[in-house]
Amino acid sequence: MELLDQRQLPGAVAFMQLQAWQEVAEAIKSMAVRGAPAIGIAAAWGVVLAARVGDDLPSAIKGLRASRPTAVNLGWALDRMQAAISSSGSGDVEALAALADAIQNEDRRLTQRLVDHGVSLLTQGCRVLHHCHTGAIATGGVGTALGVIASAHARGVLRHAWLDETRPRLQGAALSAWELGCLGVPCTVIVDGASGLLMRRGEVDAVMVGCDRVAANGDVANKIGTYNLALAARAHAIPFYVCAPSSSIDLATPDGDAITIEERDAEEIIRVRGVEVAAPGAQVWNPAFDITPAHLVTGLITEFGVLRSPYREALSALPLPN
Amino acid sequence: MELLDQRQLPGAVAFMQLQAWQEVAEAIKSMAVRGAPAIGIAAAWGVVLAARVGDDLPSAIKGLRASRPTAVNLGWALDRMQAAISSSGSGDVEALAALADAIQNEDRRLTQRLVDHGVSLLTQGCRVLHHCHTGAIATGGVGTALGVIASAHARGVLRHAWLDETRPRLQGAALSAWELGCLGVPCTVIVDGASGLLMRRGEVDAVMVGCDRVAANGDVANKIGTYNLALAARAHAIPFYVCAPSSSIDLATPDGDAITIEERDAEEIIRVRGVEVAAPGAQVWNPAFDITPAHLVTGLITEFGVLRSPYREALSALPLPN
Repeated sequence: MELLDQRQLPGAVAFMQLQAWQEVAEAIKSMAVRGAPAIGIAAAWGVVLAARVGDDLPSAIKGLRASRPTAVNLGWALDRMQAAISSSGSGDVEALAALADAIQNEDRRLTQRLVDHGVSLLTQGCRVLHHCHTGAIATGGVGTALGVIASAHARGVLRHAWLDETRPRLQGAALSAWELGCLGVPCTVIVDGASGLLMRRGEVDAVMVGCDRVAANGDVANKIGTYNLALAARAHAIPFYVCAPSSSIDLATPDGDAITIEERDAEEIIRVRGVEVAAPGAQVWNPAFDITPAHLVTGLITEFGVLRSPYREALSALPLPN
Repeated sequence: MELLDQRQLPGAVAFMQLQAWQEVAEAIKSMAVRGAPAIGIAAAWGVVLAARVGDDLPSAIKGLRASRPTAVNLGWALDRMQAAISSSGSGDVEALAALADAIQNEDRRLTQRLVDHGVSLLTQGCRVLHHCHTGAIATGGVGTALGVIASAHARGVLRHAWLDETRPRLQGAALSAWELGCLGVPCTVIVDGASGLLMRRGEVDAVMVGCDRVAANGDVANKIGTYNLALAARAHAIPFYVCAPSSSIDLATPDGDAITIEERDAEEIIRVRGVEVAAPGAQVWNPAFDITPAHLVTGLITEFGVLRSPYREALSALPLPN
């Protein structure tokens, strides 16, 4: 199994050769592979590796599941692999490989449908602002919000992409700028605090972001800084679109307040790529995500189409698996 | 002349020993000394150094003036030194030292008055959010917005200070956190994009920032990210206060749109403390300041008192020098 080592981007494009499911679990844990869909696909292939060498499959699935406990797609992909093993009563390598391939292809088709819906919202010559990273390397396909931007460019609709650098992990400056650069999409990185001035100058026609989770009322959890961006967009009457594949829609969560915000290591703020930037002994607060209330969301872009407010009704009408 | 080398903060507290006005000009140019009032005071003492060794004073004043052409206080302090030299017809070292000392003490008294007005706005147990750095090392006194926070702590009014790290130069994480740490003020650094979530959680009672310039209509130019912060504060009905010593008030500028925004080196975004963080070849846009429209400002804190909307009338009624 060949896996792009995302930790080395954008400095180096390096692939890891993985032979055992334990290496896949480690790659997920160490964030060599990131992005909910990509993690699920990698885990499915990890089960195939385990079957190929005759490892105990329940142990492999358990180990892979524990590699990133909060990732929704991870559990979903492993449940499908588990179900296939249970129903056949064996771990036939060919059958499991076909299923892993199907999971990957489904994600590719799904994100392409989502992207097509997203591009349909953009006007000719538009300038789109993006937060964090939501590109191809995070999914089995072209990515979500960044996929919309890349497709809009490919179809001649996009004039320019603006990229929030996205502190603290700088995914925008590193990954999104790298990916759009590879595709030849004209783009410019800004610090997260510059989006308001940019909008005030009339340089932004739409904001396009991904999400980690959508609650039943349409509240959106996404990378820290998304809410500030949504407030700035609203102040300038700029449409704020959220790309939400159905795997991120969680009708069991009533609203944003019910979403637990993961707080990450203080080191992410204190140090940048290993270099200390804060005063010695400084305390920091490092929430990974924030909540953008539904009323700031102009449209939720899913693989089924674009949802508009009122979101509770629109979301509950989707043909979701459960 | 002894000068704190701000470039080495917060890693080291190092003082430079300056003997010649050229060294002072170089310290201003290289940003060893930062903060409009501190620059003006340093320049005044630079003229004293020139007089002491018998250098040509018009040349020294010209050289110091060119060290940071856009700094208002620099020109103002040098004009006063020039006027003293012209009226006395000589460069008496004692007289010039007395004037430099007076400029420094005036700034100390002025910022203390401003700070007293600022503290009067805060409620018992308040939690105040701050952007960039506006502390003691930038002025001849206790600083402006950060001085308000430090004084509120000293008087038992402050519960907590939140500090925007303030990309790209990270003055909040480095300088403000260092200065408040030295004073024992409880404070926590956040990334600039986290202020909205913090407010949504009810953790902020007031925002207190400094400014680079206030236009005649009350629009404020301040460090990039200030406008996004003001929008978040307004969305949560949190008071947004701007500390504006009269030296920053420019009635000749009609409004924020008339203020030219300095665009700084792309390297500030591409590299953090010398370490590359953006994708190779990434384009960046790096405005140093943004404009916060007057309608988002709850109060302008000057040494004369707190101004409220309508600002045009309040500002024009101030006893400004011209």
